[in-house]
Amino acid sequence: MTDIRILGQQAKASCQQLALLSTQEKNQVLLKMAEALKVNTDKILQANALDLSQADEHGIKETMKDRLKLTKERIIEMANGIVQVASLPDPIGEVEKMWVNADGLTIGRKRVPLGVIGIIYESRPNVTTDAASLCFKTGNAVILRGGKEAFHSNQALVEILQTVLKENQITPFSIQFVDDPSREVANQMMRLNEYLDVLIPRGGAGLIQSVKNNATVPVIETGTGNNHVYIDKDAQLEMACNIVINAKVQRPSVCNAIETILVHKDIAQSFLPLIEKQLQEHKVELRADQKALAYLSTATLASEEDWYTEYLDYILAIKVVDSLQEAIEHINKYNTKHSEAIVTDNYFSSQKFLNEVDAAAVYVNASTRFTDGFVFGFGAEIGISTQKLHARGPMGLPELTSIKYIIYGEGQVRK
Amino acid sequence: MTDIRILGQQAKASCQQLALLSTQEKNQVLLKMAEALKVNTDKILQANALDLSQADEHGIKETMKDRLKLTKERIIEMANGIVQVASLPDPIGEVEKMWVNADGLTIGRKRVPLGVIGIIYESRPNVTTDAASLCFKTGNAVILRGGKEAFHSNQALVEILQTVLKENQITPFSIQFVDDPSREVANQMMRLNEYLDVLIPRGGAGLIQSVKNNATVPVIETGTGNNHVYIDKDAQLEMACNIVINAKVQRPSVCNAIETILVHKDIAQSFLPLIEKQLQEHKVELRADQKALAYLSTATLASEEDWYTEYLDYILAIKVVDSLQEAIEHINKYNTKHSEAIVTDNYFSSQKFLNEVDAAAVYVNASTRFTDGFVFGFGAEIGISTQKLHARGPMGLPELTSIKYIIYGEGQVRK
Repeated sequence: MTDIRILGQQAKASCQQLALLSTQEKNQVLLKMAEALKVNTDKILQANALDLSQADEHGIKETMKDRLKLTKERIIEMANGIVQVASLPDPIGEVEKMWVNADGLTIGRKRVPLGVIGIIYESRPNVTTDAASLCFKTGNAVILRGGKEAFHSNQALVEILQTVLKENQITPFSIQFVDDPSREVANQMMRLNEYLDVLIPRGGAGLIQSVKNNATVPVIETGTGNNHVYIDKDAQLEMACNIVINAKVQRPSVCNAIETILVHKDIAQSFLPLIEKQLQEHKVELRADQKALAYLSTATLASEEDWYTEYLDYILAIKVVDSLQEAIEHINKYNTKHSEAIVTDNYFSSQKFLNEVDAAAVYVNASTRFTDGFVFGFGAEIGISTQKLHARGPMGLPELTSIKYIIYGEGQVRK
Repeated sequence: MTDIRILGQQAKASCQQLALLSTQEKNQVLLKMAEALKVNTDKILQANALDLSQADEHGIKETMKDRLKLTKERIIEMANGIVQVASLPDPIGEVEKMWVNADGLTIGRKRVPLGVIGIIYESRPNVTTDAASLCFKTGNAVILRGGKEAFHSNQALVEILQTVLKENQITPFSIQFVDDPSREVANQMMRLNEYLDVLIPRGGAGLIQSVKNNATVPVIETGTGNNHVYIDKDAQLEMACNIVINAKVQRPSVCNAIETILVHKDIAQSFLPLIEKQLQEHKVELRADQKALAYLSTATLASEEDWYTEYLDYILAIKVVDSLQEAIEHINKYNTKHSEAIVTDNYFSSQKFLNEVDAAAVYVNASTRFTDGFVFGFGAEIGISTQKLHARGPMGLPELTSIKYIIYGEGQVRK
């Protein structure tokens, strides 16, 4: 079994060098990493072919196989992602604010790396290069623990990145891969407080839950989205249909897709048959409460469990509510605090929804599918935080940093 | 045994009302709380007398008895602390930034409460009113679990605050006290993920360690300070003495006091006898490494464990180092990332120390005793974070908040 403590020690030891790299040095290395991915396309594809050949053995579904599979084009995309990270402003070293206190001390609030970041993730190999490049850009060491299904792909990718590090006199321990996909090692990683400053799980609800229950290292929860669209009585029907269809079917497997719609009773009769027709075209299965069933011809009765479920599939739960207040209460009870939307023409309803719904991103008259670091304009994203501590919503480069107070004195002592 | 889950449910349920209170409403209630403390001075002193009468039974040391003891003056101080919190700007509702993205969505980053904050703390009853007022001002519900030694004082204080809440039609569940100081209930609180958004331990290293090991709720570690002053070869001796004396003896029991000084070898011969004389006047016990012993007449040999120890007492460890580099390496190995200082006239040494020492607050030519929310100008402090996630250093009101993205659309869907 891999000794994760050794990886931790090595990562910690690399922090000092990493924190002191200049932006220019980091960007040059990132561009070389992007180049190296392209140069080593064959090596990556061979490793990926090995993973794909074991996919059935690992019980990987067809939809997941697609996420696992790499192609020449996808490798170019991964390389372009790294080039983009290089082009982003470097938050490290920025002194956000500096002031003189009553004692005459000059106090500055400076951005510094978090230190060592652990990432536990599933299937998609592009997470490896995304996460590694984002952590490197922010001066953090990273320990990557991918899933067994992408083991060889991830390993090949990290080897390529490490080679670039070594060629540039940077310790390869700044980007490390856990070459043992066993659950034991993952569990050890969750309690590696001595060396890990933060652990970011990226994957399904099962993984997130396991990390939440077991980790003593500070965790940033990401990416479970039991999201809703509420269609207010003052909604424009066509806009409501467009938003529901987009949020449900454009990409049902992602965390910013919706799972339930809530429909105001005054608009249910006109809206529900309309949206049912459009959802049927996309073969979406409907599970509705008793009131909604009255206006739907293909739905089955929803159970209490449905309101809690993140289907990530062509299934939609539907509930008729008596008021905006009821919609807000339903959302705050069942949601995972990710993304929520209201469709309305009413000013006061929109403000109430924005103020009272508890989620990372709350929308008026737009699809929840926009919750994304790139879309928000952050240039990159390491995940979408669904917790309130440290980071909430799409996490870009600043979310991978901490601060340090630097204080310039002239011999002051406290009275 | 107290059912902490019920307190959690009640706290969670109170969040909606709390988050919607206007700044004016909150400030008015805070001022009434301050008034109520003064009006109920006798009640508080009676409860405190009961705690003091049990202090020996609880094995409380004399120095700790002083921290536990309330007087009329101390109650006025507590009330004034609440008045000060009322006077601070309210971070809640502030939209820090608002921009239009490529899709034409107007995206705002708005400050919101964290939700429910748990605080586990020891001895000093003023933490009860400080923490309650800071959490209330930031729209957070709080669950306070104080130590058994201050049980009756804390309970009386919370009852008074809750009465004010009720008189102002605010749910008393927004400030709750765990009326069971058993370890079992504290342990349950550490795993109350369903209801607690964050847990802040305030107390000794034992408490912090226990929370770190047992909590699954997100934690903000506070207040362990194994801090150093490094006296560079280019230090002014008088300034160095002033800073060391202030940082060690002005208040040895607090987390921003120092435990070790590191002295450059070139200055050891002139500095060490000088500082020894001054430290002797304050009856400070010295534990020195072999090199330092050569210049000291009263010191004993330090062990490896001394470098790790937060004495919080009139004891100082002393080590002679060959270089600034060695000082930085020593600090980064043994410190608790709290507060560190260099005394030097050299520009490059000061910059290197500021850049390379890993701590919440790094000082040049000033005492570490300044690490404090009030001193930094934050107006209040809920503790000093020694972790890198979410908050680092003195935590004021903004550190008790999270953010929410509010997004105004016109029917946009994702392409």
